[in-house]
Amino acid sequence: MLDPRSAKDTIAAIATPPGDGGVGIIRISGSRARDIAHAVFCAASPAFDDFEPYRLHYGHIQDPDGVELDDVLCAFMPGPRSYTGEDVAEINCHGGRAVLAAVLQETLRHGARLAERGEFTYRAFMNGRLDLSQAEAVAEMIHAPTRAAMHLAQVKLSGLLGLKIADLRTSLEALRAQMAVAVDFPEEELECLSPEELIQTVNAVRKEIKLLLCAVDRTRAWREGALVVLAGRVNAGKSSLMNGLLGRNRAIVTDQPGTTRDYLEETLNLDGLAVRLADTAGIRATDDAVEAAGLAKGRELMDQADLVVVLCDGTTPPDDEILATARDLDPKKTLAVLNKTDLPGFSLAHGEPFAELGLRTAGVSAKTGQGLPQLCAMIREQVLHGAGQPDTDVIAPNARQAAMLAEADAELAGLAEDALAQVPYDLLSVRLETACNALASITGEIAPADVLNSIFDSFCIGK
Amino acid sequence: MLDPRSAKDTIAAIATPPGDGGVGIIRISGSRARDIAHAVFCAASPAFDDFEPYRLHYGHIQDPDGVELDDVLCAFMPGPRSYTGEDVAEINCHGGRAVLAAVLQETLRHGARLAERGEFTYRAFMNGRLDLSQAEAVAEMIHAPTRAAMHLAQVKLSGLLGLKIADLRTSLEALRAQMAVAVDFPEEELECLSPEELIQTVNAVRKEIKLLLCAVDRTRAWREGALVVLAGRVNAGKSSLMNGLLGRNRAIVTDQPGTTRDYLEETLNLDGLAVRLADTAGIRATDDAVEAAGLAKGRELMDQADLVVVLCDGTTPPDDEILATARDLDPKKTLAVLNKTDLPGFSLAHGEPFAELGLRTAGVSAKTGQGLPQLCAMIREQVLHGAGQPDTDVIAPNARQAAMLAEADAELAGLAEDALAQVPYDLLSVRLETACNALASITGEIAPADVLNSIFDSFCIGK
Repeated sequence: MLDPRSAKDTIAAIATPPGDGGVGIIRISGSRARDIAHAVFCAASPAFDDFEPYRLHYGHIQDPDGVELDDVLCAFMPGPRSYTGEDVAEINCHGGRAVLAAVLQETLRHGARLAERGEFTYRAFMNGRLDLSQAEAVAEMIHAPTRAAMHLAQVKLSGLLGLKIADLRTSLEALRAQMAVAVDFPEEELECLSPEELIQTVNAVRKEIKLLLCAVDRTRAWREGALVVLAGRVNAGKSSLMNGLLGRNRAIVTDQPGTTRDYLEETLNLDGLAVRLADTAGIRATDDAVEAAGLAKGRELMDQADLVVVLCDGTTPPDDEILATARDLDPKKTLAVLNKTDLPGFSLAHGEPFAELGLRTAGVSAKTGQGLPQLCAMIREQVLHGAGQPDTDVIAPNARQAAMLAEADAELAGLAEDALAQVPYDLLSVRLETACNALASITGEIAPADVLNSIFDSFCIGK
Repeated sequence: MLDPRSAKDTIAAIATPPGDGGVGIIRISGSRARDIAHAVFCAASPAFDDFEPYRLHYGHIQDPDGVELDDVLCAFMPGPRSYTGEDVAEINCHGGRAVLAAVLQETLRHGARLAERGEFTYRAFMNGRLDLSQAEAVAEMIHAPTRAAMHLAQVKLSGLLGLKIADLRTSLEALRAQMAVAVDFPEEELECLSPEELIQTVNAVRKEIKLLLCAVDRTRAWREGALVVLAGRVNAGKSSLMNGLLGRNRAIVTDQPGTTRDYLEETLNLDGLAVRLADTAGIRATDDAVEAAGLAKGRELMDQADLVVVLCDGTTPPDDEILATARDLDPKKTLAVLNKTDLPGFSLAHGEPFAELGLRTAGVSAKTGQGLPQLCAMIREQVLHGAGQPDTDVIAPNARQAAMLAEADAELAGLAEDALAQVPYDLLSVRLETACNALASITGEIAPADVLNSIFDSFCIGK
């Protein structure tokens, strides 16, 4: 939890991803950043006297006993022209966990506090370096699974959503000012602002909001990736299909090494679209409690899925149980796949009961790979509902921003109705203020502590 | 494989660990580094004209269509004062995989080649920025699992092993010069260099080599970590013990997310010592081929282990099979642990058959945690054979360097014997040359391509 009282602390953290790599960075931010950098850093150049701003200085970090910990490059960036807007020092070390832990420890020993999740970006926001939509875009950039997702994040990081919101707020604030005049000089009310003018402005703003909300839906799968769940009996070949799809598509290495899950999940890049592919426990009646828990988890996943792939052995007709499963699913979000096209007993006719349920069907051989490219194309098509790769300049709000836009839109809709019904302007202005506040919370001009905490808690430490 | 013919290419790679983090770095090295940086980087400052060396410039990366990919800091470091000794550019991006892939792709589009494993450090070595022992220390720094391992790597990274080897070579080269004179002027042989003087110098060098080799053994567990294998029946509580030990000791996250193994392995930090804790398949006779393969793997692990922990249920006497397993193991590398001290039927007397085999025994409750701190201490003690944490200035050669030292030592031992036996100096000088060459290969003055390849292939890409 970010505590504004601790905003004066100088904070430090490892800013690079965890693990082993050539280079790792320790970032320090706050009023003591320069002092702490001086305390831990010994420049190689005997001429070194002080940090020249924005310059990489070569030297080493040493502990209080004078033991060299690592050879590093160190740079000092004075506020406000830094990431956080405060004084910032960055130490480029070797990218090993023991090295980074040791160097970080030295900064803490000299008075830095370990940064909370997202605290550097929180400070950048508090110091006006980023608006809230840009701060959120930082996390979206980092976690973007594909290039399309990255472009959508970068548009927001560059501040375009903030500019758009500022435009809309300017229109609404102008309206508020006119309404205030009208309220103060009621006899001139209609001269100041006719209900028709008011409704016209409100509708123009609502049209812009609708365009933004439209982009939310159209880009969701591109931004967040799609969840595709494999369902079917154990012997239907789910694992083989999973491996087959992974083998044909670049797997995206997951973030969290060692995370255990109740089910197997892999993320793959399906021609630019991130797909989380989950293998559920096989479908069958069971008395075993552990197995039942696995099945319940599978059912939960199917409910959340963008697409359920019901996999059957195509050499035999589907049994009642699998048909019952398929019947419970939304046909628009389900695909029936008959496996084992390579075996002599295979028949596409075994898929007819699925077709009767309104499901699309496909035949594949997970073993030989036959039909897998076509299956990938079908998965992509069905998940995207025909939404192509978004342009690189689309402004696509995230879920929180969309909720705020929807709230503003609802107030403005009510406002337009009230205006038609000749409700007095002093009552209408309350609705207008609510709409303005909803927009202001997108860029963070209004930002309650709990909203900020939930946003920055989703960051990694070091950003 | 590093191909010297491609040494003129400008290379690029992601230099930070893979995964998501606040910051990621793309490193470019070679004669075109500056041009490529200019091609991909758009400075935010309108006054930007060219990179000021070693200065962080703020701006963004854009693709050929003018689409902004990311906001970045970019620095140019002209050779030879750079990591590789060549012109180097570094781009600090947001640390997400899609972002880093996109920026890397831009550098490749403008003519950089993706760097091979260790190629940056290889170039630093080829350009004389690091000797070979320092280049190896770079990888040792990055992969150091603990602070002790990091200190041992840093001593070598700072060049102390290279200096020591240079000292030894100077002594031996002086000897070679004196022997050459003696060979050229045989009548003055004894005046130039008496066999006693020769043997004295050789023994002084051998003494130094022995000190280095001694440090190799004394620090091995600290540098490489120790392998501790859990063996025992399935119901003995191996998984619980593993979890218990992990719960009490900071787990070290493994490097390779998603790596599948035939057995469960976790690395933990046992009071500064890295321990790889492996859980093998339960011990029991089996006809099942898959299970048999698991048991064979377990046997192989036990052979490699620094310590095998034989775990038994302490509420019953050990059975014949587990005793047979224990009998096959080296008592110095085996510890018998009786689990379930928390149950009423537990008795330490059940460990007597192990004591009779010469094994140390301990009682624990994996469930309640009773006895685990004592077990950790016993594991540490038995693995280290009393070798305490090494001083931070110990020069500890790695396995390759130790092999070269041993080769030099063997030649010098033969040389001393031959000198006593009055073998002529022109024959002795061949041995001396061999010893000198072995030392020279530690620092890389002599470095066959296959040795270099095997060293740099163990690096990660981006270092």
